[in-house]
Amino acid sequence: MKIDVCFSPALYPMYHDPESIVVVADVFRATTTIVTAFYNGVRSIRPVATIEEAKAYKKEGWLVGAERNVKRCDFADFGNSPFDYTPEKVKGKDIVFTTTNGTKAITIAKEAFRVVIGGFVNLQAIADYCLTYQRNVIILASGWEDKVNIEDTLYGGALTEVLVETGRYQTASDAAVIARDMWNTHKQNLKSYMEQTDHLPRLKANNLEGSVDYCLTLHIAPAVPELHIENETLILRN
Amino acid sequence: MKIDVCFSPALYPMYHDPESIVVVADVFRATTTIVTAFYNGVRSIRPVATIEEAKAYKKEGWLVGAERNVKRCDFADFGNSPFDYTPEKVKGKDIVFTTTNGTKAITIAKEAFRVVIGGFVNLQAIADYCLTYQRNVIILASGWEDKVNIEDTLYGGALTEVLVETGRYQTASDAAVIARDMWNTHKQNLKSYMEQTDHLPRLKANNLEGSVDYCLTLHIAPAVPELHIENETLILRN
Repeated sequence: MKIDVCFSPALYPMYHDPESIVVVADVFRATTTIVTAFYNGVRSIRPVATIEEAKAYKKEGWLVGAERNVKRCDFADFGNSPFDYTPEKVKGKDIVFTTTNGTKAITIAKEAFRVVIGGFVNLQAIADYCLTYQRNVIILASGWEDKVNIEDTLYGGALTEVLVETGRYQTASDAAVIARDMWNTHKQNLKSYMEQTDHLPRLKANNLEGSVDYCLTLHIAPAVPELHIENETLILRN
Repeated sequence: MKIDVCFSPALYPMYHDPESIVVVADVFRATTTIVTAFYNGVRSIRPVATIEEAKAYKKEGWLVGAERNVKRCDFADFGNSPFDYTPEKVKGKDIVFTTTNGTKAITIAKEAFRVVIGGFVNLQAIADYCLTYQRNVIILASGWEDKVNIEDTLYGGALTEVLVETGRYQTASDAAVIARDMWNTHKQNLKSYMEQTDHLPRLKANNLEGSVDYCLTLHIAPAVPELHIENETLILRN
């Protein structure tokens, strides 16, 4: 089986394959947060693309998580920090969620065989899921406003490494080779490598760097949120 | 000043800046071939996007270089090998040129402050050109059919490293950090790293791997082909 890494949502049309599993990654922090919410017992998350949609749900009484440019939106119950979604607040609940980059990537990939949500926190759980289905895998890095970023590419490399090491997957293209190689070069010093990213200063400027260590911790929240389409609505379920 | 690396023509809109110098790279082999032709004395090269345009020029008596999917087109005088463009054949001549990926990238970037043609063979010459203009630089990796490839990303890393090492340039985004890092990790073993690329098997299948060593040789053809637009026609000149 083959594994590939798509470095930006803008490149997804070149990598799309309706028979593949797509793993969407927005490590800082949308997909890490979604995975954490499911690990903490949320029942469903509806990813929506716009603030307007999120506000409309809020008016109907839904719990809403909403972030733009790293900041939590005023009207929302939650922001984009995994620490917002504690078991006390989310267990058994249905939530609506919108973020700058992550929800867009989920929407783009919806025609794939399956879409699941990945981060370092559920690395092995996603690998196990892929191995169960025995399908080709495409990791879709959310990036930042369609530009390539380090953290999501690195996650692509980590999942590629785990799957290739089983002996059952091979890299599908140069992009997967680049990402895997990046992971193997930097996996021992993730935190210091992240000091070079564009996104860490954004998080620091908003006093949010506290969640960075969590977002880089392997296997700490082994949930696998999976995309379903019900009555034309996108819904993530465990 | 800032230097960035755009990993695919499909991402170029996110990186475009009309005030920057764009360096187009299609290391295997379009841009290496163009640089070599100029080093060997060609007077001008007109990059055209389609085979039809190239054929029309041929009918008018022009010398034409044309390649699709690694193979030289039947009607053409030259293929896409740098070895085709010897001083005996090209000195003082005007040539029309079309290739699978390289000419497309040149066309996309035409609105930039300047567009120049880069490869490992003219690495220092391009760096010197950038330093003379004192402008921000975007390296546009041609990739393969809009997918990311190793060789052009690696070139982006090499030029980034050369310019950053002068102390006058900084990386503009995560993409430049990734590419520079790739270069610094693999610059001592370029040839063996290339064994992992998707493109080397394509070249080998057509008995063209002989030009790979040449394409990876630093500074061997210090020419700087620059894009001009004359009567709405794209023309590369030294």
